[in-house]
Amino acid sequence: MVSRSCQEVSATVLAEVHQLYGRQSHLIDGGSAREWAETFVADGEFHSPSYPAPVVGTDELTRFAELFFERARDAGEVHRHVITNVDVVAVDDETLDVRAYLQIVATARGGDSRLVRFTTIADHLVRQNYSWLIAQRTVRRDDS
Amino acid sequence: MVSRSCQEVSATVLAEVHQLYGRQSHLIDGGSAREWAETFVADGEFHSPSYPAPVVGTDELTRFAELFFERARDAGEVHRHVITNVDVVAVDDETLDVRAYLQIVATARGGDSRLVRFTTIADHLVRQNYSWLIAQRTVRRDDS
Amino acid sequence: MVSRSCQEVSATVLAEVHQLYGRQSHLIDGGSAREWAETFVADGEFHSPSYPAPVVGTDELTRFAELFFERARDAGEVHRHVITNVDVVAVDDETLDVRAYLQIVATARGGDSRLVRFTTIADHLVRQNYSWLIAQRTVRRDDS
Repeated sequence: MVSRSCQEVSATVLAEVHQLYGRQSHLIDGGSAREWAETFVADGEFHSPSYPAPVVGTDELTRFAELFFERARDAGEVHRHVITNVDVVAVDDETLDVRAYLQIVATARGGDSRLVRFTTIADHLVRQNYSWLIAQRTVRRDDS
Repeated sequence: MVSRSCQEVSATVLAEVHQLYGRQSHLIDGGSAREWAETFVADGEFHSPSYPAPVVGTDELTRFAELFFERARDAGEVHRHVITNVDVVAVDDETLDVRAYLQIVATARGGDSRLVRFTTIADHLVRQNYSWLIAQRTVRRDDS
Repeated sequence: MVSRSCQEVSATVLAEVHQLYGRQSHLIDGGSAREWAETFVADGEFHSPSYPAPVVGTDELTRFAELFFERARDAGEVHRHVITNVDVVAVDDETLDVRAYLQIVATARGGDSRLVRFTTIADHLVRQNYSWLIAQRTVRRDDS
């Protein structure tokens, strides 16, 4: 086996991280934009090739999530962030590196569901006030 | 961070819940209808816009799961319940609220796989005999 | 409830297994063929109806993973193994049976993503040097 982490990830830490990822998509997909933004630290960063500049800080992240939700709604669709393959590496007691697959699935009212985009996210997490928050997310699209 | 639960979900409880959801789809998809029904309490309820009336109790739930399996088989297909984005909120020591994404994927023998339906489930779980069982499931379809 | 395992799976064991499955797909999908092969024991076996003979041992498994990655790349595509519905049954302290759904999703550069194949994996895991490794994997395709 190759060495891959400075230390083991405990069951407790993994549970906390799985809860964060389990919950996060429901927030942005359901229109809880501010709560989604608050899964990042106050100056958290979101980098994606789909957008020209990084989205930085709670206010920008909130607006980003609002736009995501509004655009889907205006198109008469529901968009979902499907998270799988969560892999957690402990950097130290207070920081984690997480990667996962994130698929965007869209469904038209009265219509079919389709896989819009397949991405991989690479997140850097930090512990704040006994919670894990995202300090930086970088999205890679499989089609680019 | 917004307050979202009366108490933390422990790693042990989360493991029990993930095992329940990891296992449940294999049961209905593989034709183990009675065992699927027994992941609900004896008077458990299943509410879905796809069906005119709620399905209530072990016998009705068993028949529901049998029909799901038989219809796929009669169509020459295999149908799968793909569960992701499990989010667990503790109401108290004995009850949990869980939401998750549940996709139905169908594959024809010798044919392609397709995403049939994207749904969100909202479950209410209770602890019985040291196991978590579903007291009520409500399904929301993205296309309706 | 039906009896289904000799013993409970602890939160710690489930965390270890979820980490293994969370990580494994990133390895083969990202071209880390040898590291993927090393998630199996040294004489580990991979059985699939997609291939005429079982793939056995670290060297063969490594070559298998290299070919998977090279074929996708040569086709101008990225292929992903999406794992869900992980269900873990403890046989004893040192061995586990795991089943899960494994979908292959392909994305062309500049093109759409598509679900190529839906499979179910049945794995037999053993503990070695404080890690869980796959002793045998059997893949079942829904289209065959």
